[in-house]
Amino acid sequence: MNRMDDTLIDVPRGLTNVVAARTALGDVRGQEGFYHYRRHSAVDLARDRTFEESWYLLLHGELPGDAELDAFRVRIAEARRVPEGVAALLPAIARLTAGDPLAGLRMALTAVAAADGIRPLYDEDADARLRDAIRIAAITPVVLASLHALAGERRPLAPRDDLGHVADYLFLLTGEEPAPEHERALSTYMTAAIDHGFNASTFTARVIASTGADLASAVGGALGALSGPLHGGAPSRALDTLDAIGTPDRIDEWVTAAVRSGDRIMGFGHAVYRTEDPRSRMLRDVALGFGGARVDFAVRVEERVQQLLAELKPGRELHTNVEFYAGIVMELCGIPRPMFTPTFAAARVVGWTAHVLEQAEDGKIFRPSARYVGPDPVRA
Amino acid sequence: MNRMDDTLIDVPRGLTNVVAARTALGDVRGQEGFYHYRRHSAVDLARDRTFEESWYLLLHGELPGDAELDAFRVRIAEARRVPEGVAALLPAIARLTAGDPLAGLRMALTAVAAADGIRPLYDEDADARLRDAIRIAAITPVVLASLHALAGERRPLAPRDDLGHVADYLFLLTGEEPAPEHERALSTYMTAAIDHGFNASTFTARVIASTGADLASAVGGALGALSGPLHGGAPSRALDTLDAIGTPDRIDEWVTAAVRSGDRIMGFGHAVYRTEDPRSRMLRDVALGFGGARVDFAVRVEERVQQLLAELKPGRELHTNVEFYAGIVMELCGIPRPMFTPTFAAARVVGWTAHVLEQAEDGKIFRPSARYVGPDPVRA
Repeated sequence: MNRMDDTLIDVPRGLTNVVAARTALGDVRGQEGFYHYRRHSAVDLARDRTFEESWYLLLHGELPGDAELDAFRVRIAEARRVPEGVAALLPAIARLTAGDPLAGLRMALTAVAAADGIRPLYDEDADARLRDAIRIAAITPVVLASLHALAGERRPLAPRDDLGHVADYLFLLTGEEPAPEHERALSTYMTAAIDHGFNASTFTARVIASTGADLASAVGGALGALSGPLHGGAPSRALDTLDAIGTPDRIDEWVTAAVRSGDRIMGFGHAVYRTEDPRSRMLRDVALGFGGARVDFAVRVEERVQQLLAELKPGRELHTNVEFYAGIVMELCGIPRPMFTPTFAAARVVGWTAHVLEQAEDGKIFRPSARYVGPDPVRA
Repeated sequence: MNRMDDTLIDVPRGLTNVVAARTALGDVRGQEGFYHYRRHSAVDLARDRTFEESWYLLLHGELPGDAELDAFRVRIAEARRVPEGVAALLPAIARLTAGDPLAGLRMALTAVAAADGIRPLYDEDADARLRDAIRIAAITPVVLASLHALAGERRPLAPRDDLGHVADYLFLLTGEEPAPEHERALSTYMTAAIDHGFNASTFTARVIASTGADLASAVGGALGALSGPLHGGAPSRALDTLDAIGTPDRIDEWVTAAVRSGDRIMGFGHAVYRTEDPRSRMLRDVALGFGGARVDFAVRVEERVQQLLAELKPGRELHTNVEFYAGIVMELCGIPRPMFTPTFAAARVVGWTAHVLEQAEDGKIFRPSARYVGPDPVRA
């Protein structure tokens, strides 16, 4: 029989190491402990630049000049305003999705797209796509902070045009204009979280975009993927580890028991990095800048986990991953724990939307094959 | 330098012919013009069985006995009931997403998942996943019909437990208990549309499911992909072709002009089938069973397009695809044109949810790679 699947190409399960796309947005070099956005070290950008500069860089390929950055900030501030029809719907969305702000965000972004009249990618020109990309990414933290306020029976605040994107998010979340060191620390984390290779959520966004669907559909799918427990990006779990240990004198006992029982220690280990995760190292420095008992405890846990692992499982080097100190930094900035993963999403949405724009330029639909492995069909 | 991407595997763009998953759910044999669900010819199932029987077959691997089918129907009828909190939200959703029922459905399914407390796939056992899969698939046509009613300023009807799944959908859409021949015709179409290999939407559902996200997240992503103009599954476009031609005497002129200008003729051609699309042949028979001027016109257009193409572009065989007669059949059944693609989704969601359950058994996350193709990074 002349079967199509004579031509099928077998690859590792889960498409591990399979080149699903070409990208000029950035690269993760796991062996070197280095990653970049458009040629620029992401760690340097996170330390030295504003969130908006990296955002602009990803969209436009170059860092902005002063005038370009000013115009971009104005554009972002405008894109943060919530349409009336969506604002009216948010209380009901918050009620229904209580405790799951990412689900609420998914609903709200579809509503934003409908209110704005966002159209399929392939029905729009590059300018309109860019506008939609900025809109969806800019409004994400505002929606998340609004849902958080509503869940706590508070009225959502209106975004402030005079604040930077990260400061505005902190303001909307906490109700207070943030201290400069909190704005700086959160900006460092959020910039470092904008993009990081081809995780499942970024891939999902690109697959949906490849059909020509609209930007909110692509980001909605990415949010769905992010909500999966295998995806990662849940910094609250690392803090749960610290809570479970409780006090410095219990570290050895707890870690030894965890290693012996084969449990994964949340906040340690990464699929790509074999060296120390560069994000982790940077966020540890940010945390150490604040200091205090909580930070000392975290550093002590990190040291002891590595020492004990070296003793108990020689040869298995395990470093803290981005989640470990991300949780500490967000806690220091006053972000409530249920908003850790949503905060990650508020940063990563910039990466997702940049990937969607790049995919739209490609124009080829993802249409892989499946290999049928069931019994032979019943034939007449 | 020791770069990770030494190990990357290059494959065709868009993952064409790449085996992204193994499946026992079914297979499309493009060279043979044959496709099946779990060994059983999909065309035979569509002709001879109820929609519910194929649904059960996909979920359980075998056709149901009488008692099993009865119990399954009861289960589906229960799963069609819209939670109060969701029903209260539907008018606002319908207002915001007017004219885009798939966007409204995406919002509503997230709301259903929240109202039901549907949890991530990997936090549930097989029974709970099956329950969620039936829930999401069963409620989809009810939500779509409700949004359609609300868009027309009518009150949504409550689903009827005494009707089969397809008859209930027609009842909710039209407000009248359907004639048996309409129920039969729509059941044929919808059964044939349950699954068809690894299109972008099915793939999206599996990628999201692979993270362990919940069923509504996976189906929401699939709906996003389906909304893309490259995805296909828009039977209304084929009717638009018939409308553009207008009358039988204009067929030759219109088709000749379209072929000469290189325009794609909607309703013709398919990515996989080289023979006649078996779904098209079957739906033509269904349409011919109804007869009438509209059907005669469609058949005449099909014949002349093929004859003219053979003359104008020798060697390029082009057959009608599933969209061509699907549009005719849905029109004959009284389904309004804006509900054609949503009706496709109401059938395909059964396939998506079956794929999600299969993916959840696999348990491996999709995490492909991207190849960086930009300029060399700036290094300190």
